[in-house]
Amino acid sequence: MRELGIGLIGTGFMGKAHAFAYRAALAAFPDIPAPRLEMVADVNADLAAKAAHQYGFARSTSDWRALVNDPRVDVVSITTPNTFHKEMALAAIAAGKHVHCEKPLSPTLADSGEMVHAAEKAGVVTQVGFNYIKNPLLKQARDMIAGGDLGEITGFRGIHAEDYMHDPESPYTWRIDPVGGPGVVADLGSHIICMARFLLGPITQVSADVRTVVKSRPVAHGAQERRDVLVDDVARLLVDFARGCGGSLEANWVATGRKMQLAFEISGEKGSLVFTQERLNELLFYRAGGDSRSNGYVKIEAGPQHPPYGEFCIAGGHQLGFNDLKTIEMGEFLRAIGEGRKATPDFREAYEIQKVVEAAIASSRTRSWVAVA
Amino acid sequence: MRELGIGLIGTGFMGKAHAFAYRAALAAFPDIPAPRLEMVADVNADLAAKAAHQYGFARSTSDWRALVNDPRVDVVSITTPNTFHKEMALAAIAAGKHVHCEKPLSPTLADSGEMVHAAEKAGVVTQVGFNYIKNPLLKQARDMIAGGDLGEITGFRGIHAEDYMHDPESPYTWRIDPVGGPGVVADLGSHIICMARFLLGPITQVSADVRTVVKSRPVAHGAQERRDVLVDDVARLLVDFARGCGGSLEANWVATGRKMQLAFEISGEKGSLVFTQERLNELLFYRAGGDSRSNGYVKIEAGPQHPPYGEFCIAGGHQLGFNDLKTIEMGEFLRAIGEGRKATPDFREAYEIQKVVEAAIASSRTRSWVAVA
Amino acid sequence: MRELGIGLIGTGFMGKAHAFAYRAALAAFPDIPAPRLEMVADVNADLAAKAAHQYGFARSTSDWRALVNDPRVDVVSITTPNTFHKEMALAAIAAGKHVHCEKPLSPTLADSGEMVHAAEKAGVVTQVGFNYIKNPLLKQARDMIAGGDLGEITGFRGIHAEDYMHDPESPYTWRIDPVGGPGVVADLGSHIICMARFLLGPITQVSADVRTVVKSRPVAHGAQERRDVLVDDVARLLVDFARGCGGSLEANWVATGRKMQLAFEISGEKGSLVFTQERLNELLFYRAGGDSRSNGYVKIEAGPQHPPYGEFCIAGGHQLGFNDLKTIEMGEFLRAIGEGRKATPDFREAYEIQKVVEAAIASSRTRSWVAVA
Amino acid sequence: MRELGIGLIGTGFMGKAHAFAYRAALAAFPDIPAPRLEMVADVNADLAAKAAHQYGFARSTSDWRALVNDPRVDVVSITTPNTFHKEMALAAIAAGKHVHCEKPLSPTLADSGEMVHAAEKAGVVTQVGFNYIKNPLLKQARDMIAGGDLGEITGFRGIHAEDYMHDPESPYTWRIDPVGGPGVVADLGSHIICMARFLLGPITQVSADVRTVVKSRPVAHGAQERRDVLVDDVARLLVDFARGCGGSLEANWVATGRKMQLAFEISGEKGSLVFTQERLNELLFYRAGGDSRSNGYVKIEAGPQHPPYGEFCIAGGHQLGFNDLKTIEMGEFLRAIGEGRKATPDFREAYEIQKVVEAAIASSRTRSWVAVA
Repeated sequence: MRELGIGLIGTGFMGKAHAFAYRAALAAFPDIPAPRLEMVADVNADLAAKAAHQYGFARSTSDWRALVNDPRVDVVSITTPNTFHKEMALAAIAAGKHVHCEKPLSPTLADSGEMVHAAEKAGVVTQVGFNYIKNPLLKQARDMIAGGDLGEITGFRGIHAEDYMHDPESPYTWRIDPVGGPGVVADLGSHIICMARFLLGPITQVSADVRTVVKSRPVAHGAQERRDVLVDDVARLLVDFARGCGGSLEANWVATGRKMQLAFEISGEKGSLVFTQERLNELLFYRAGGDSRSNGYVKIEAGPQHPPYGEFCIAGGHQLGFNDLKTIEMGEFLRAIGEGRKATPDFREAYEIQKVVEAAIASSRTRSWVAVA
Repeated sequence: MRELGIGLIGTGFMGKAHAFAYRAALAAFPDIPAPRLEMVADVNADLAAKAAHQYGFARSTSDWRALVNDPRVDVVSITTPNTFHKEMALAAIAAGKHVHCEKPLSPTLADSGEMVHAAEKAGVVTQVGFNYIKNPLLKQARDMIAGGDLGEITGFRGIHAEDYMHDPESPYTWRIDPVGGPGVVADLGSHIICMARFLLGPITQVSADVRTVVKSRPVAHGAQERRDVLVDDVARLLVDFARGCGGSLEANWVATGRKMQLAFEISGEKGSLVFTQERLNELLFYRAGGDSRSNGYVKIEAGPQHPPYGEFCIAGGHQLGFNDLKTIEMGEFLRAIGEGRKATPDFREAYEIQKVVEAAIASSRTRSWVAVA
Repeated sequence: MRELGIGLIGTGFMGKAHAFAYRAALAAFPDIPAPRLEMVADVNADLAAKAAHQYGFARSTSDWRALVNDPRVDVVSITTPNTFHKEMALAAIAAGKHVHCEKPLSPTLADSGEMVHAAEKAGVVTQVGFNYIKNPLLKQARDMIAGGDLGEITGFRGIHAEDYMHDPESPYTWRIDPVGGPGVVADLGSHIICMARFLLGPITQVSADVRTVVKSRPVAHGAQERRDVLVDDVARLLVDFARGCGGSLEANWVATGRKMQLAFEISGEKGSLVFTQERLNELLFYRAGGDSRSNGYVKIEAGPQHPPYGEFCIAGGHQLGFNDLKTIEMGEFLRAIGEGRKATPDFREAYEIQKVVEAAIASSRTRSWVAVA
Repeated sequence: MRELGIGLIGTGFMGKAHAFAYRAALAAFPDIPAPRLEMVADVNADLAAKAAHQYGFARSTSDWRALVNDPRVDVVSITTPNTFHKEMALAAIAAGKHVHCEKPLSPTLADSGEMVHAAEKAGVVTQVGFNYIKNPLLKQARDMIAGGDLGEITGFRGIHAEDYMHDPESPYTWRIDPVGGPGVVADLGSHIICMARFLLGPITQVSADVRTVVKSRPVAHGAQERRDVLVDDVARLLVDFARGCGGSLEANWVATGRKMQLAFEISGEKGSLVFTQERLNELLFYRAGGDSRSNGYVKIEAGPQHPPYGEFCIAGGHQLGFNDLKTIEMGEFLRAIGEGRKATPDFREAYEIQKVVEAAIASSRTRSWVAVA
């Protein structure tokens, strides 16, 4: 397989991120199947045409079904609002395409389960856009944990906090319409759950407090009329990991001041790791023992010794950005297709993450510990 | 009241801290009653005598009862192990002395309640050694919250994590003997509960996971024989505050690498505050609004604009240390005695803190939310 | 002008960076002339062919002269070793091409002057690869300075320190062959001089200490035989700015531990700015005045309010990386060509920077202050 | 020698710091001669009497000569303005007292030389108040350098920048009267020179730019009338160390925003150290080599493993403050007296530091490199 025809649905925030990534992927990873930018779809034909020029796609369409059924399209990237994911993904799978879908798979666990089932039955390669775990330093973290550098793990503290909903006067939008699924526990919570699973494995039980902080919002910017908010703004979870340790998670979109506090601290009997996406090119590592006079947290700075950083820059200190993480994600996806094996995180992994989200909501409603199904 | 005769029981870690503080208090706060270092007690008479010389006390004794009943002693500082607090405090109160007791008041809530009752009935002034809230920057934080700089508070995340018990081979000691009370949830948890209450007021409900991580420890350094550990190493709490917001707390003494992660992040609708005792002379403050191009977290550095910093140094940037916080604590205690009013945090406040500790343990046992009595 | 044919000479570290940038430029900046990846040259034909596939160039060649004279090539990017820059640039200019050249223009000031002269006479657009000043936060810094947020500027402290030559056993290479020009004072010094000029304008006088720290190096990895090092490892400069303030600069490639300490602190009567490329998405700003209890350094985090960050990501907190800075650089270059105006920094600006480098070397030799010609 | 009678001259900022230190010294260092707080002098008798009460001195006086000649005074601490140091120190020395003098010894090198001569002839123990080098982490840094952890030292960058004179409208005061000596080059410059010498040894040559930034200041707060400023606001130095490496120093009291940027970075062939007094309980250490994937700067946090931290607190993480550094200073002074040996830094060391200050001024005047006499 020398080439893969790419079809992109959606031209917003994530659509652009996918475009950057597909354009950079081969330059970074010369051994993957070359992505051929075949077609871009947007419900607005003008936007689609503009995007085709801007991102270098050969064709554009306002009909996503045309895209998923196009014979020159091998891979479909879905970057539309959550409520459209299922229909598009099922259609693409039915057409035998490999599918990359932005998170979450769908607003409900049942629908997501259907998507997993369809994809696995069809045998297509799938991937879901949990880009943050593509950071070379997180691969390093996972390797250190797996390699025993921290010893037995004794605790995890994870957070994904931002502030884009902190202002009670910011209006009611599609983002907080329950039709699209739960609130922050799904939107940001899924990222930190994904990261926790990536590093430490499955979560088995949850006690959660999932709450709405801003009870109503104006129907429009500056409007007098307000509408009740039905989704959550903050979720706090106590969790059990299958490996035997406990932890806590927080998802928060009213964390005034925070733009990207996607962070964790992992403690083990012999060492610990501390990370925040706010400084995504740094990882703190503590190793117990040695000369106590000169021991402490080591600030590991990302460099070519942390693959695949070196595919972007041969010298340390230059730093990767968000779009580079997305390029790694797409590069891995294309490579998996080329090699005919599963990509990660795939639809099933996204489904497992969603189970934790659902368990948190159930726990909060019942004020009790709930097992992750 | 020009002078107060000080009696100090215990000459270990905290005994020394009290000595430093009493020696410095008048130099920092010239308007308080002058502490006269009258007597020091230690069960070991030699240690007591040495301490008297070293700390400048007039007399020493191996009989703490002699100390609490000495007519020239007006104030008793109790810095002995937890199990002795009650007996000593009750004796001192019975003798009409004002009492400073290190935390916790006692191993059990019932005993602590007795101590509160005795003190309040006797009308003596009490204080408990939650020194960290004496930081001038925490007073600043509390003032900012109370003054509305953060708007409505929407969340609290608090941690007190250290690593002095992280090594499974560190032996079983009095510190983890359940006779002394619970484990980390009391030892470190009480500090972050105290700080949460100081800043945001009462906690009303708790869902907690309080667990033992290191199941057994050698009976002595390097010993083959091990003894089961019965107290907790990590406690994670979801909490409700009476003011209406939620939060989470963690107490952890197996947090490898952490020496003093006593930290919080408070979010409000209009702003936020971030603090860690690891950098006790800094407080981060974010205020929403203004010019977005130049807005962000402000690093407030402690200076004379944050009373009573200026009593220690008239210029900013010089920094306070742990012993200075203890001096502020003792200065406030002596001033309260001089002015005939309550000190803070007093026995009752320590009792309220202990209720949250007990609620956490009950919650963890029953795997349910528990109201703080 | 709808399109510009791009010719890239060199496929190493910077060649790849150019390729990434040209591939991303239109996606980020849809209104610039579209770069058409026309031809890539490398002295090794295989490498050139591989690069063409990997980076998406239509053709490849081992003959750079063919590239610069190709009629479908409008723009030539030169990323070869310093000693080749002049010949290639002059040929490209002679062929009427716009030229982007990696820094430095050439090993000697005289040769660089020739390049400037040729480019200006031919009227082609030029640009030199001082990518770090393309950071949106540095544009913000420059705007704040120009807009008076710092008041009268009173001092500049600038550093570019890395450690790639710190080990005395790392061998003698082309990098330290004086044929390629001076040592670190040119290699890294030019970056911090560029940044200083970008922010504060011309430097007029210099007192410098330019020295070789590692006096000899092995002729090859592990070799017994050593060769004398003739170029500098560290340069420290005192400088005068034309605007009236003083400052200091350091360039250092033996700064063990430093991977990218390209940093400055600028003080003004009313405020200050602090930056390090080690955290390139952060800028510290202090504004004197206001409420002293809550004032301090503000950590500005890069976001869409700092153009052109928003062309890469519409949300703050996601962060740009090194390759994004290069994309901005190339985007600006292509836009300047499209609009028929000068790009910055152009050959002349690079020449002015080199004058400061030369003045530093002269100052160090004569142990005296030297005027920048 | 069981006790030493202490006489303190001056009750301002540093007078109070000395008082705190003498009160704490024996508690921290039980084996030193016990300081007996004998007498305090202030030209204002009321202030002296108040200070005696507040600081616990037995007697007070408005006549410093009475103090230096009092038979029960063994040690004299001089904390008055610079212009008084010489007369007081010479009188104390003549009376056979040991003398601690705040920095600088005196406004002129000649006068300081006289003081050194008198002290050495009399054989009394002297010390000068360069308290910052008393930080346990700086002892650790010095030990690491001396022990070879950094290998051959290749460079030093030192700064002492604060902002107390940054505002052009802050009035003309005694602090900037040239009668008291030079400006910032002496006031703050001496601290960073002291630190450089403490860590790396003598400085032999200097090229400096010592300049006045605020040319005139109001004669009083808010006054129209202005007075020309004759002393320097910023000093930038290139330096040679006797050990063979170069470096740079900056002293700056118009560094808007900085409260205590007393900082250095030391590079060696094998490692480096980074420190700032802004975080005085942290020291960054980089050691080249090892596993590059997990190497980086180690943040060493002060603890009992760094003597004499443990004399203040037996647990790490609690942190020392400025007054603790002063206690270490006084403890070392008293111990030196008790043991009949030199203290450090003594009058001679202060004199050597002042030579560097004078060389910087001479260099700046002559715009040339100047040897330190």
